[in-house]
Amino acid sequence: MNAIKLHPLKKLEIILAGEHKEFATDLLDRAGVKGYTIVGNLSGKGSHGLYGGHLMFNEDDVLIMIIAAVPQSLVDPLLDGFQPFFDAHSGVIFVSDIQVGRLAKFMA
Amino acid sequence: MNAIKLHPLKKLEIILAGEHKEFATDLLDRAGVKGYTIVGNLSGKGSHGLYGGHLMFNEDDVLIMIIAAVPQSLVDPLLDGFQPFFDAHSGVIFVSDIQVGRLAKFMA
Amino acid sequence: MNAIKLHPLKKLEIILAGEHKEFATDLLDRAGVKGYTIVGNLSGKGSHGLYGGHLMFNEDDVLIMIIAAVPQSLVDPLLDGFQPFFDAHSGVIFVSDIQVGRLAKFMA
Repeated sequence: MNAIKLHPLKKLEIILAGEHKEFATDLLDRAGVKGYTIVGNLSGKGSHGLYGGHLMFNEDDVLIMIIAAVPQSLVDPLLDGFQPFFDAHSGVIFVSDIQVGRLAKFMA
Repeated sequence: MNAIKLHPLKKLEIILAGEHKEFATDLLDRAGVKGYTIVGNLSGKGSHGLYGGHLMFNEDDVLIMIIAAVPQSLVDPLLDGFQPFFDAHSGVIFVSDIQVGRLAKFMA
Repeated sequence: MNAIKLHPLKKLEIILAGEHKEFATDLLDRAGVKGYTIVGNLSGKGSHGLYGGHLMFNEDDVLIMIIAAVPQSLVDPLLDGFQPFFDAHSGVIFVSDIQVGRLAKFMA
């Protein structure tokens, strides 16, 4: 068995209404994100951050979660790029630490 | 580009049979969790913790995963609240660290 | 309320074409992984690490994500076991830290 060297990356989990999928993937592409995976047909519930108590999603909305692994250097530009969208639309971005075996797949 | 301040939260990933969805979302609502996202139509396999070796899920069971981002202070009450359920039913809860840009969406 | 003792584990998120599901679950079973959850019908895009710039997945491919919580001791053997597969096929494995309340469900 060979020792596997793991490399740290950041995972973004972007949850938003499915109708905005192209906006989000275009933004990821333009920022230089090399890949993403999309989980479809989610449901959810939440309150809107700016107008607390208002429904963010109805149970019936079709949500998607876009999962992308990116270098640390892309986290701030991506969050900044999505900020105007999330000022006007519902959804969230979770940022977390992951490790991957093959850094080349994720670096521009 | 503005610097984005990130705030730490805990992510709960609750995997259980779809028939128990309402029990779980009711528990989250009553605990003050402000939102969650549900991934449906999962499949899975596992052994039951109390009776090792018995099947936890069959390949054919319809499972769901409920994803919720909560403040640290809610983790113990939620795990405690789910404990009797998972004593009697199959499933798991994963707890992990995430960061979010907008804390207001997740705090009561 | 009882204090819940949490135990650290590693979460593997294995994203690959759905046609290779059995290969992956067989490998997990043989390595002693006690359970996993499969998210189906994903879509995605990415470039291949070995041949940068080539498409890893087309938007139309049916991808799956296999989620498994494993003890630290299984991470290297599993990454090692999947390495020849990912040398020849598209896909990724994300490794991250999680905590669980019931260690017995995840240990051989």
